[in-house]
Amino acid sequence: MSNDPIGPPDAFANPRFATSATFARLPSTSEVSNPKVVVLGVPFDSGVSYRPGARFGPTSIRQGSKLLRPYNPALETYPFANVQVADDGDVPANPFNIAEALDAVESRASSHLEKGRKLLTLGGDHTIALPLLRALGKSYGKVALLHFDAHLDTWDTYFGEPYTHGTPFRRAFEEQLLESEACFHVGTRGSLYGASDLAQDKSFGFEIMTSDDVANLGWKECASRISAGVGDKPLYVSIDIDVLDPAFAPGTGTPEAGGLSSRELLQILRALRGVDIVSADIVEVAPAYDHAEVTSIAAAHLGYELLTLMSLGS
Amino acid sequence: MSNDPIGPPDAFANPRFATSATFARLPSTSEVSNPKVVVLGVPFDSGVSYRPGARFGPTSIRQGSKLLRPYNPALETYPFANVQVADDGDVPANPFNIAEALDAVESRASSHLEKGRKLLTLGGDHTIALPLLRALGKSYGKVALLHFDAHLDTWDTYFGEPYTHGTPFRRAFEEQLLESEACFHVGTRGSLYGASDLAQDKSFGFEIMTSDDVANLGWKECASRISAGVGDKPLYVSIDIDVLDPAFAPGTGTPEAGGLSSRELLQILRALRGVDIVSADIVEVAPAYDHAEVTSIAAAHLGYELLTLMSLGS
Amino acid sequence: MSNDPIGPPDAFANPRFATSATFARLPSTSEVSNPKVVVLGVPFDSGVSYRPGARFGPTSIRQGSKLLRPYNPALETYPFANVQVADDGDVPANPFNIAEALDAVESRASSHLEKGRKLLTLGGDHTIALPLLRALGKSYGKVALLHFDAHLDTWDTYFGEPYTHGTPFRRAFEEQLLESEACFHVGTRGSLYGASDLAQDKSFGFEIMTSDDVANLGWKECASRISAGVGDKPLYVSIDIDVLDPAFAPGTGTPEAGGLSSRELLQILRALRGVDIVSADIVEVAPAYDHAEVTSIAAAHLGYELLTLMSLGS
Amino acid sequence: MSNDPIGPPDAFANPRFATSATFARLPSTSEVSNPKVVVLGVPFDSGVSYRPGARFGPTSIRQGSKLLRPYNPALETYPFANVQVADDGDVPANPFNIAEALDAVESRASSHLEKGRKLLTLGGDHTIALPLLRALGKSYGKVALLHFDAHLDTWDTYFGEPYTHGTPFRRAFEEQLLESEACFHVGTRGSLYGASDLAQDKSFGFEIMTSDDVANLGWKECASRISAGVGDKPLYVSIDIDVLDPAFAPGTGTPEAGGLSSRELLQILRALRGVDIVSADIVEVAPAYDHAEVTSIAAAHLGYELLTLMSLGS
Amino acid sequence: MSNDPIGPPDAFANPRFATSATFARLPSTSEVSNPKVVVLGVPFDSGVSYRPGARFGPTSIRQGSKLLRPYNPALETYPFANVQVADDGDVPANPFNIAEALDAVESRASSHLEKGRKLLTLGGDHTIALPLLRALGKSYGKVALLHFDAHLDTWDTYFGEPYTHGTPFRRAFEEQLLESEACFHVGTRGSLYGASDLAQDKSFGFEIMTSDDVANLGWKECASRISAGVGDKPLYVSIDIDVLDPAFAPGTGTPEAGGLSSRELLQILRALRGVDIVSADIVEVAPAYDHAEVTSIAAAHLGYELLTLMSLGS
Amino acid sequence: MSNDPIGPPDAFANPRFATSATFARLPSTSEVSNPKVVVLGVPFDSGVSYRPGARFGPTSIRQGSKLLRPYNPALETYPFANVQVADDGDVPANPFNIAEALDAVESRASSHLEKGRKLLTLGGDHTIALPLLRALGKSYGKVALLHFDAHLDTWDTYFGEPYTHGTPFRRAFEEQLLESEACFHVGTRGSLYGASDLAQDKSFGFEIMTSDDVANLGWKECASRISAGVGDKPLYVSIDIDVLDPAFAPGTGTPEAGGLSSRELLQILRALRGVDIVSADIVEVAPAYDHAEVTSIAAAHLGYELLTLMSLGS
Repeated sequence: MSNDPIGPPDAFANPRFATSATFARLPSTSEVSNPKVVVLGVPFDSGVSYRPGARFGPTSIRQGSKLLRPYNPALETYPFANVQVADDGDVPANPFNIAEALDAVESRASSHLEKGRKLLTLGGDHTIALPLLRALGKSYGKVALLHFDAHLDTWDTYFGEPYTHGTPFRRAFEEQLLESEACFHVGTRGSLYGASDLAQDKSFGFEIMTSDDVANLGWKECASRISAGVGDKPLYVSIDIDVLDPAFAPGTGTPEAGGLSSRELLQILRALRGVDIVSADIVEVAPAYDHAEVTSIAAAHLGYELLTLMSLGS
Repeated sequence: MSNDPIGPPDAFANPRFATSATFARLPSTSEVSNPKVVVLGVPFDSGVSYRPGARFGPTSIRQGSKLLRPYNPALETYPFANVQVADDGDVPANPFNIAEALDAVESRASSHLEKGRKLLTLGGDHTIALPLLRALGKSYGKVALLHFDAHLDTWDTYFGEPYTHGTPFRRAFEEQLLESEACFHVGTRGSLYGASDLAQDKSFGFEIMTSDDVANLGWKECASRISAGVGDKPLYVSIDIDVLDPAFAPGTGTPEAGGLSSRELLQILRALRGVDIVSADIVEVAPAYDHAEVTSIAAAHLGYELLTLMSLGS
Repeated sequence: MSNDPIGPPDAFANPRFATSATFARLPSTSEVSNPKVVVLGVPFDSGVSYRPGARFGPTSIRQGSKLLRPYNPALETYPFANVQVADDGDVPANPFNIAEALDAVESRASSHLEKGRKLLTLGGDHTIALPLLRALGKSYGKVALLHFDAHLDTWDTYFGEPYTHGTPFRRAFEEQLLESEACFHVGTRGSLYGASDLAQDKSFGFEIMTSDDVANLGWKECASRISAGVGDKPLYVSIDIDVLDPAFAPGTGTPEAGGLSSRELLQILRALRGVDIVSADIVEVAPAYDHAEVTSIAAAHLGYELLTLMSLGS
Repeated sequence: MSNDPIGPPDAFANPRFATSATFARLPSTSEVSNPKVVVLGVPFDSGVSYRPGARFGPTSIRQGSKLLRPYNPALETYPFANVQVADDGDVPANPFNIAEALDAVESRASSHLEKGRKLLTLGGDHTIALPLLRALGKSYGKVALLHFDAHLDTWDTYFGEPYTHGTPFRRAFEEQLLESEACFHVGTRGSLYGASDLAQDKSFGFEIMTSDDVANLGWKECASRISAGVGDKPLYVSIDIDVLDPAFAPGTGTPEAGGLSSRELLQILRALRGVDIVSADIVEVAPAYDHAEVTSIAAAHLGYELLTLMSLGS
Repeated sequence: MSNDPIGPPDAFANPRFATSATFARLPSTSEVSNPKVVVLGVPFDSGVSYRPGARFGPTSIRQGSKLLRPYNPALETYPFANVQVADDGDVPANPFNIAEALDAVESRASSHLEKGRKLLTLGGDHTIALPLLRALGKSYGKVALLHFDAHLDTWDTYFGEPYTHGTPFRRAFEEQLLESEACFHVGTRGSLYGASDLAQDKSFGFEIMTSDDVANLGWKECASRISAGVGDKPLYVSIDIDVLDPAFAPGTGTPEAGGLSSRELLQILRALRGVDIVSADIVEVAPAYDHAEVTSIAAAHLGYELLTLMSLGS
Repeated sequence: MSNDPIGPPDAFANPRFATSATFARLPSTSEVSNPKVVVLGVPFDSGVSYRPGARFGPTSIRQGSKLLRPYNPALETYPFANVQVADDGDVPANPFNIAEALDAVESRASSHLEKGRKLLTLGGDHTIALPLLRALGKSYGKVALLHFDAHLDTWDTYFGEPYTHGTPFRRAFEEQLLESEACFHVGTRGSLYGASDLAQDKSFGFEIMTSDDVANLGWKECASRISAGVGDKPLYVSIDIDVLDPAFAPGTGTPEAGGLSSRELLQILRALRGVDIVSADIVEVAPAYDHAEVTSIAAAHLGYELLTLMSLGS
């Protein structure tokens, strides 16, 4: 039927190694009428505190997504046939002005969310989670947050600057964008600035499952706790690729040893079926530090699971 | 005694970093009279659907094998002393003509199998599993198959071409080369073209243990199921290096996140002691995408376990 | 005026590092009405005799072209304002069937040439020069040829195969597609199979300026000889990126030491102003062997000069 | 108070990506009066049998340590506030004379140990463990040994040379530097020269937990066995980075597939709280084979745990 | 004599591969009393328009400088014996606030210039040339400028931002910091935004020697023109490493094909003996894109020539 | 005729990318009766003062030589048909004992030279030039020396050690192995330890053509001076690959910016036709620092010219 969602071109007749600028070789938003799930790039990395380069993340994740196929056997569904998924290209965020860039992201995100669409945003650094949560707030009020990351990202300021890749979730808490009883950090590890980092984070309502916890509890128990905590609240999923061990994701800016394997993270995500994911992001892919697209491919595969879950709706 | 198998030269007097063109610095077939196990290279990658480069696989795996030593402590045996193992170099497969290349592989493999030898073939891409199974068919009739891979490789055609790296096992099934009650895919994961991929695969008689299954069941249970399924049938083992996660094997052509660790795979292989492995291959090592020989070394170590098992006989 | 050619988006408001799938961030052919010069990708490398990987060439050259700006100061003109230049994406050439792939390239090229358009084709391996010359033959009859390459590419067959990356210009000569009195190899060097390689090549009417000749004569004299030889004949320019020294173009399949610098080649190209270039290609960029986009950027800059020359017309 | 230990400069005002030559941006020994724990580099790799390059290990580990922060949340303490930790730079070990180099290492180590300091030594290759144990012997008599490595390092000689990176612990045993009832190899795997390698090793009093054992027993059980075996004896911890799988530590000289993950190793280390670690080393980081500092960062994070444990005292 | 300048430690007794954080293993400013020439790092790259990463430039250039030896045979002098040269470490420039960062650079530079010292500043991106010229202005009034770069860096704004790596010399002109009759761009090439870029640049008083000019005129003539133009005015030399061809300097952010060789640039610099260089910078080294320290070593060797010239005085 | 020299296998039927362990895919010495020119590997790098890794040089140069073809068009001859050239594999030089290693090299070289053969030795580091000159001395008495290098390699000792990669030619002079009136350094550049380095070198009889001299004089004049100086004396050619600029040869241990291009060096070599080259070496290729075989291919092509010259005899 003519209104069926349009998916990627047939890989048996169109080489997947041909040039394409969209995620999973999906149609762009200009080619379809009213997508339900939109992939959006934000090539912005002016909020980083160590290695820059995530501005090239959207290009590299899309390149890493070319092998994706239409059927998700783990979740037994065709994500791109369930609903129309389309790629909206990149937000032209100003690299020299953080505030202006955040406004541009919020505005572009809002334009989609207002139409009832869900977003998978490809960063870019973690600073962009804040304008995305602001945009979500206008549509959903407070949202639950599932945050995969080596770091807490609830610090206050760096060099006096309040809007950086280490601070988005403190700002979001302060701006009352988060359901503070339903916020999770998963995969944290490594050294901190002080014990107060944890105390403050806890006061914002976050529950922590460290990378060690994931190993010791297992992905199934982790996913159960998340699902139970989130309940039927609208959930935002934010994946900093550095939640993976540097072996699985070398291409990132602030790597910490001792992280998750990509299989663990994929298993946790798939186990969230049934939770109401309203939007998501994957950030901090810095391809200058990647090798053989290992990081980009991991990010693309994580994006595929998120798109599948969003395509299934709540 | 003069008829003792000849192994690698003494590493305490001959630097392992010296140039050598044989697997594990073993003698070449021209240097020994009647080897029982032969290592054979097939530098062929004209059957790939994404990243090429596996034509350089045999060279890189042999380079990665230079550190191998004579004693296998996990299996408590000296593989190169059990039987004569020798390296037969590479099949000069035509890169421009798939059919001709497959014939050359089958012919060279047959020349060894006819003499009662076992083969460890180093690819090259997975297309070459078909002529190897054809050659085995002439000596053993149908064989059991243990296939480690991220992918099923039972697709029908690509761009209309029936002989590619994604199709060897469907062809082998059609040509009645496989004991269809004793065929296993281990390590599969990632997206598919459709649910019918799985249905068709099942109809060919394959049993699947996904990468997630390996994690959840454990290597011991996986190995038990395989051993039980294979019984005393002659077994062919085919390892696509992409069964490993890209973290462990970046140097390959169609990587999928969420794969096995090399330790898991080594443990499964070692637990197959007692099964009658009649030949094996390791394919899809594409060194242009490798780093620091990580992939080549993993492949070489997998090859060492396979040679050990073949040296022990059935 | 509304019919002015459309160029790249403003780089002062749209980051050049944002995802884009077109050469120089130009519009795609679906976005403009009747381009005069078309950039076309051919992600095909099944004709290579050594390192594969040029199938990813079109994507990498386009990525390397993102920094290109609207004004060419060396030629003092605005190429994208002179005429409409647009990117037509990639030909889905069958990687498993050389003949079929060549037909697809010829057909797509012809569809543009028939409309009086000029083509800049991004390979892919050098095999594709043959179908491009066939398509040109239908529009122009015999053409002059300016071939930059480390190699002659007038060999007869490899492994019995007549259509490979080492044979296109012998086939073209045999098919009477070349003005044999106006054909140049520039930049050749390195070892050959025999003295007859040169004798045969000469019999086809080629004049050779080796890489050493370029150094010794200087770019100006080389360009003068080419211009004089070509006269007002329609000229096809074919650049194998391996004409550059591996220092300048590591990302290629059959590198030869002792090549041109990119500055030399750019100077020769610019000095061809006034010659009637009717189409051109840049081939053999294999990004798996590139570093930091050095090769892709060199290719993109060469493409920019070729587009400028074609935009100026004859 | 003015006698409080001096830690790294404030990362919120001093960029961690600024040039620094000390571990964790700690003060150098010339900047503090009497450190209790000292980090010492030994840029020496003339004892290696395969890939050299560990001479650049100290520089690369320090570079990989720049992201380290003051608070260790897993062990709930501030290592650099517990005691003064300082970096003493590198021992200028003669690369052309192994004996002279070992003497220089022993002498420098002794100068610290005599003052009751603990040492974290950054290699360099594993040869240097011998002079470090000699120095310890002068202060502590025999010590318990916890040796993380893919290899036993109790071979006798290479090319007739007794002092190499494969022999330090046999020499240490012979020199009666080890509490032979409290010596552990953890993480061994891969092929050996003969069954006698294991028999001899056992005769020296070593207990082995292979990499497979770690996977099968779990980190907690491994740590318990170590703690029980060590009891209250002074313990030396020696970490060859190749104990990690090449996926986690590609930058090393004699990689073996099938190793530990960095998370496993970090968990074992942290579980040793309460054991009396008197000094430690991290060796065999060869950055020419590293990628994106993955290996250096893993080494730095392991060093952080060791420093934390040493800062807590016994 | 005790007041002789202190140079690097003896390389025949202290391995140059040992960890060191200073340029050429020179003493730091804290170790000497009153240096005449100071090396200063500015790890800042928030002004870049394409690939970031120059924040790691100072560390990488210092690493690339370790092989430098005391005697300069081309200029027949001992730079580090002529005057005391010392390394002052890095300015902690705020990565999130360009204005604040520029102030910090100016302030630190002024603190040295006020004492009659000369500066070799290691960037960092080209934005930092502005505060350095501001500091120079306070000591010298207007200065002559010798600017090696692929780009003009006299653009007006990017995304509305006036202080970026593409605009420092327009700002400097506007602020009347430059002797506009004695300003040179050397090595420019590649595409521009418009013909007006050149016209405006000329109106600021710049003379241009393009990369092609350098090839065609030769280094000697170029140096003569520069020397003649500068006369006895105080000269500031600013080297954007992208003046070199990407073959010679892949590790940079906005590479352009067709650049200078490092030998050409070294020859030009050495020929400036006798000109009064009062300070200099080397910027835009982005090591994430470098390979085998090729770019860092080129930068370090350029720095060595600049230090030599400054050590000779005017 | 059956006594015709055996060359490489036919590249039109045997893929050059197949595994091979000999230079240019030539026969090994065990496959031919009495070769006139022998290629010999020395995987030894224990004499290096900075980056190690040249022990892997012989393997990498042979890998880089696979594309070499039978006809040399620049010298218009078939080197492998002129005389039998064969590969003798590698000398098992002890990595832990420099003196023992040098003896092994001298002994193996002598065994060939005594039979009137010429040698092309592939290093390994430059230390090995000394035993090669010692072996030559026994056959030829004093020889002329043409030494291409960034460095003089006539230093006295490092860390007190007289046999290192920086000292072979001083030792050779002292041992009266060199015709001191016919010794040339070509391509030197970069900083030195002192002016006395040059004075001493001159006192040994060396003439220097720096890298700048090569640029300024041109390859033809350089070659003329060398030919005139050498006359009809037997000449040894020693090429340290670092004579090339790091752009052309990144894979080496002590790189210096400002070096020769590979084209320049190839041109100089070819112009030596007629000089009596009795043996040669190519050293200091350290593949861990190479990229895409750029350095190895340059080394292999240089070796091809040397073999051609030696095949032509005197």
